[in-house]
Amino acid sequence: MNEFDRIAAYFAPLASSPGAAGLKDDVAELSEAPAHSTLVATVDALVEHIHFLPSDPIDSVARKLVRVNVSDILSKGAKPTEALLTLGWPEARPEDDLATFADALGNELKKWGIHLVGGDTVNVPKSLFLSLTLMGHSPGASPIRRSGARVGDIIWVTGEIGWGAIGLEAALQDGAVDAIERYRVPEVPPLGMAEILSAHATGTMDISDGLLADLGKLAEASEVAAHIEASTVPLARSAGDFDKAISQLAGGDDYQFLFTTAPEARDMIRQACAEIGVSVTEIGHVTDGHGVHVTWRGIQQSLPHRLGFAHGEANG
Amino acid sequence: MNEFDRIAAYFAPLASSPGAAGLKDDVAELSEAPAHSTLVATVDALVEHIHFLPSDPIDSVARKLVRVNVSDILSKGAKPTEALLTLGWPEARPEDDLATFADALGNELKKWGIHLVGGDTVNVPKSLFLSLTLMGHSPGASPIRRSGARVGDIIWVTGEIGWGAIGLEAALQDGAVDAIERYRVPEVPPLGMAEILSAHATGTMDISDGLLADLGKLAEASEVAAHIEASTVPLARSAGDFDKAISQLAGGDDYQFLFTTAPEARDMIRQACAEIGVSVTEIGHVTDGHGVHVTWRGIQQSLPHRLGFAHGEANG
Repeated sequence: MNEFDRIAAYFAPLASSPGAAGLKDDVAELSEAPAHSTLVATVDALVEHIHFLPSDPIDSVARKLVRVNVSDILSKGAKPTEALLTLGWPEARPEDDLATFADALGNELKKWGIHLVGGDTVNVPKSLFLSLTLMGHSPGASPIRRSGARVGDIIWVTGEIGWGAIGLEAALQDGAVDAIERYRVPEVPPLGMAEILSAHATGTMDISDGLLADLGKLAEASEVAAHIEASTVPLARSAGDFDKAISQLAGGDDYQFLFTTAPEARDMIRQACAEIGVSVTEIGHVTDGHGVHVTWRGIQQSLPHRLGFAHGEANG
Repeated sequence: MNEFDRIAAYFAPLASSPGAAGLKDDVAELSEAPAHSTLVATVDALVEHIHFLPSDPIDSVARKLVRVNVSDILSKGAKPTEALLTLGWPEARPEDDLATFADALGNELKKWGIHLVGGDTVNVPKSLFLSLTLMGHSPGASPIRRSGARVGDIIWVTGEIGWGAIGLEAALQDGAVDAIERYRVPEVPPLGMAEILSAHATGTMDISDGLLADLGKLAEASEVAAHIEASTVPLARSAGDFDKAISQLAGGDDYQFLFTTAPEARDMIRQACAEIGVSVTEIGHVTDGHGVHVTWRGIQQSLPHRLGFAHGEANG
């Protein structure tokens, strides 16, 4: 099939909103953000051999592509709305895979209330290359930024940390099937999380590069110090000491949310998250200063240099 | 350099608008479309070996990436505003190339008044992969669609047709330098064209897959027949007969605009285009029916099957 036949066969059926013009025109019309809200956008790519394994089922790749982008939008207190897909498809991949990919993509977009409105389908010489641009509507004048954490705030994470690291290990070693599944299709908190964050969070981000490194970015952007008690972090695989926990605390691909709130919001956060079935855990607090400071059962820990905590701030 | 250092060194300097948050956050804020206008978006990818040659200078690749997207937005009567870049960079490419790429990208975006607001930078195993999502503001309730051509309209093209085909041939055969340049960095009509099209055009598109094939798409979307006198099309290399002209009329990668207007707009189009230095040529007219009908000095011509004019409509 040529590009136009592929679009007509596989992707036009996913693009039913009027702004998509059936994927038959040069541009898409985006829906307006409602009054007193802001239009936001993100783009995240997945590349075969780099972000997923050639042996990963193609439907899980489609679902992961949507989720890594949804995670960026939702974690800022915004709701995803419309997407444009760039698909670099290797000639050697069977056409059946493309049908399976499009079907899974359509189901996953639907799950999150997202309309496909445009895209580009091209051939590539070798590795499958996927990029999704995702729009969202954020209540208020701007989304919650990484830079909003304030001295005195408490630090939260959603879900369990470490599934990305443990699942990748399992996938490479033919390990536990449920762990492999969690790596291939990461769990992202549900849509209802956007309202909770936009109402209460001061600083937020999704955890894609590992809890410790991402916490470092949040602290740096907010010009504060982040202190966590690492033994309180809910891990995918429980660990007896900090050294055993570090691969999960530092591993990437979790797509859970890291956020800060005023301590007064503690009960509201717990109750609101419980109502939508999201497990949420208080793991630390914010002070004056800079860097990430980690204790394990009260004892201060050193962070590995490879996390990018050079210059000694991390244990200042 | 890792991903974050690359973004900070090469791309953050291009992202000075507040909505970009210095490329340091998870989402970008997009600017609102002005009152009585519509936000539009497009995405177009360029892949090494497929859309450009490994020997093409990296600065020309950056400029082409911007132009193929600008062409989509401008040809619909909209003005480009903000962009998100997906960069799949092969490990083996020298770091110097990345600096040159970013510099050329920045200059080209600036030329068209576009702000870089977000992106994703990833490694790829082999071929350079580029995708740009471009937003624009279109006056009125929707952009001009391919489907707007009406019976009685006249058909126009901007600029010269065939530089894409002739330039690619030259690049593959060490031919004329000016032709190679026109292939590497296609000429796209200037920003002022958006106002002219939004004021007068009924149907529009950019010419990326070849004048004849794209005219076929416009006719099909509008449910009309398009008739052109091919000898009036301004060609990059003049041709004595239709057979000699066909490779230019059917060649892709021109990025000039194809549009229709009412005949009453003829003088206004000519004058307005002259004022902004755009050459524009009337090449035919629209009737009831379907397909593309071509004459050369008054004599009806057959169109090659490879253009996708199956079923005999093209010469009906």
